[in-house]
Amino acid sequence: MIVHDRLRLIATEEAFTTPEQVDAMRALARSTWHDADLRLWREASRGDDAASTRTRIVSAIYDRMADIESGRLADMDANDVDMHLLLLTAPGVQLFDPDTATAIAASSNDRLAQAIRLHPDRFAGLATVAPQDPKRAAVEVERAVRKLGLNGIVINSHTDGEYLDDQKFWPIFEAAVACDAAVYIHPRNLPEPAGRYYVGAMDLNGAIFGFQAEAGLHAMRLITCGVFDRFPTLKIVLGHLGEALPFWLYRLDYMYRKYPARPGFTKTQLLPSEYFKRNFLITTSGVSYHPTLRYCHEVLSADNIMFAIDYPYQESPEAVAFMRSAPLPRADLEKIAHGNAERIFHIAPTPVKVG
Amino acid sequence: MIVHDRLRLIATEEAFTTPEQVDAMRALARSTWHDADLRLWREASRGDDAASTRTRIVSAIYDRMADIESGRLADMDANDVDMHLLLLTAPGVQLFDPDTATAIAASSNDRLAQAIRLHPDRFAGLATVAPQDPKRAAVEVERAVRKLGLNGIVINSHTDGEYLDDQKFWPIFEAAVACDAAVYIHPRNLPEPAGRYYVGAMDLNGAIFGFQAEAGLHAMRLITCGVFDRFPTLKIVLGHLGEALPFWLYRLDYMYRKYPARPGFTKTQLLPSEYFKRNFLITTSGVSYHPTLRYCHEVLSADNIMFAIDYPYQESPEAVAFMRSAPLPRADLEKIAHGNAERIFHIAPTPVKVG
Repeated sequence: MIVHDRLRLIATEEAFTTPEQVDAMRALARSTWHDADLRLWREASRGDDAASTRTRIVSAIYDRMADIESGRLADMDANDVDMHLLLLTAPGVQLFDPDTATAIAASSNDRLAQAIRLHPDRFAGLATVAPQDPKRAAVEVERAVRKLGLNGIVINSHTDGEYLDDQKFWPIFEAAVACDAAVYIHPRNLPEPAGRYYVGAMDLNGAIFGFQAEAGLHAMRLITCGVFDRFPTLKIVLGHLGEALPFWLYRLDYMYRKYPARPGFTKTQLLPSEYFKRNFLITTSGVSYHPTLRYCHEVLSADNIMFAIDYPYQESPEAVAFMRSAPLPRADLEKIAHGNAERIFHIAPTPVKVG
Repeated sequence: MIVHDRLRLIATEEAFTTPEQVDAMRALARSTWHDADLRLWREASRGDDAASTRTRIVSAIYDRMADIESGRLADMDANDVDMHLLLLTAPGVQLFDPDTATAIAASSNDRLAQAIRLHPDRFAGLATVAPQDPKRAAVEVERAVRKLGLNGIVINSHTDGEYLDDQKFWPIFEAAVACDAAVYIHPRNLPEPAGRYYVGAMDLNGAIFGFQAEAGLHAMRLITCGVFDRFPTLKIVLGHLGEALPFWLYRLDYMYRKYPARPGFTKTQLLPSEYFKRNFLITTSGVSYHPTLRYCHEVLSADNIMFAIDYPYQESPEAVAFMRSAPLPRADLEKIAHGNAERIFHIAPTPVKVG
């Protein structure tokens, strides 16, 4: 096994939080609202007296997310990770009313830009926007990218059960394309009416399974709705090595050819696999497994894949070892480890760090 | 590319219908019930006057399913397919009231057994049961396997939004294990509250995407609920090369280790991937694509995979060419093309047919 020590690593789905998000999410966590995205926030804020092992583990994750600088840089240094592309942790601002969401998105983007200014060689970041108010979200895309210099945007899948294939959200895509800003569709839990089926002896609506179902569905709605015919240069990023859509490329095309459009809609110009290869990039977040990486490399290309850790939900050493020992040609590995992130997120290439 | 002409082919997910199922489903199709599983039945029975191209295509599928003997045998002969393992087409009897469902299941099993008696070298089949009445379903499993000689059972995923992890259904598993009968979890559409999100410019709750989400979820509920600790020899069969669970094996195990059980439940003895490799077989139905087959072969084994066409929803020539040219060792191909089906479904091995 070849281990590539001298490989620039840009991790592209790394979570942070802000005091404003924490305060607003904890306020919701104290409510009777049963949204599944409040579960971890509840577990993290149960208080020290009754603190279970689980509470301590979850609380530690939130502490690590809040520590944008010292703890994170120490983890990056210890694991030879050159850069983190930072994202406000899921569900971002998408549980708040439009005014609160828009305000917290802006404050998050300001804080993120400040962290990047302090450590431009270590951090890049994606702007949070509030789909609840698509017009103001579009304005925030422009401000965050053009004025703050952020590197793209992140949207945590559905907003109150609505998906971005709905044309009311397309001002966001229009701004993203105008700013050449890729849109990371980060998972969140399925809407409650769907998520209630994701149970067994454990909650399956979550990082183990529901996240992937939700983000994969979101991508499929985008693929079939015509957004890529309207915005042919739009770039969408998916985590978890593409939320299993690479597994389905053959079947999607086969059935797409057979399926009629719903009344009032038209079929897209290209096949699902053609949009997936042209308009999507996938990251390795949470799937540090060579067979799946090799499979995606085979059915897509090295240009479609980017390295990610999902810090601090996942551990850096395993993700880094996975990347440095990936059984792929060196040139392809360079693209996956950093080259594609530099291209898609407009991150300056720098000399390779000595490992 | 090596093409294996002299390879016995047992196709393991081949649909048929009966007059009783057709009559009962068409009665529902004339109702105002919006269950997504009625969509194709409605399209097939719109009447000749207004027959669109789509209606004619769908009607032809139903005609081919109803023709168990002559048309099917001609298709098998033309494509050098040795055997069809027959399944009553989805959603089987699972939309009917318990009495109707139990009766139509029995009549279907009788007709199936009769077709097999007439052509024992060409047909095998899975018994339909009605989960609506688990105790009578268990009795039907015993009758169908021990008395009629059928080769396993098929259940079309959820029944009225309920899944087989619910212990009220476990008499069915108990009977299946007692009869050494594998249980094929065939897809159907997601329950309406979940399926309503599977839309875009086309219906995504269907064979293009929702089927896979539904059957994959069902498998995950079984994996996490403890059914394989209670019934360690239970064999579950999934189509579509495992409904993407092979894509998720690494992540499922990773998150399973971190996740707590829900109150009142306990965690299983083994990891999800361990159950998947021990208790599941997957078929190639609807995914005639070498990269995905090779990937599943790598992360599972040749013992976990079986050939299927999904006749008449999919075309035989493509599936057969895919299997005969699969880039796998000949010994593994023998297992996938027929050996595993003989073992799991108790089908007599016969001399290889000259192609």
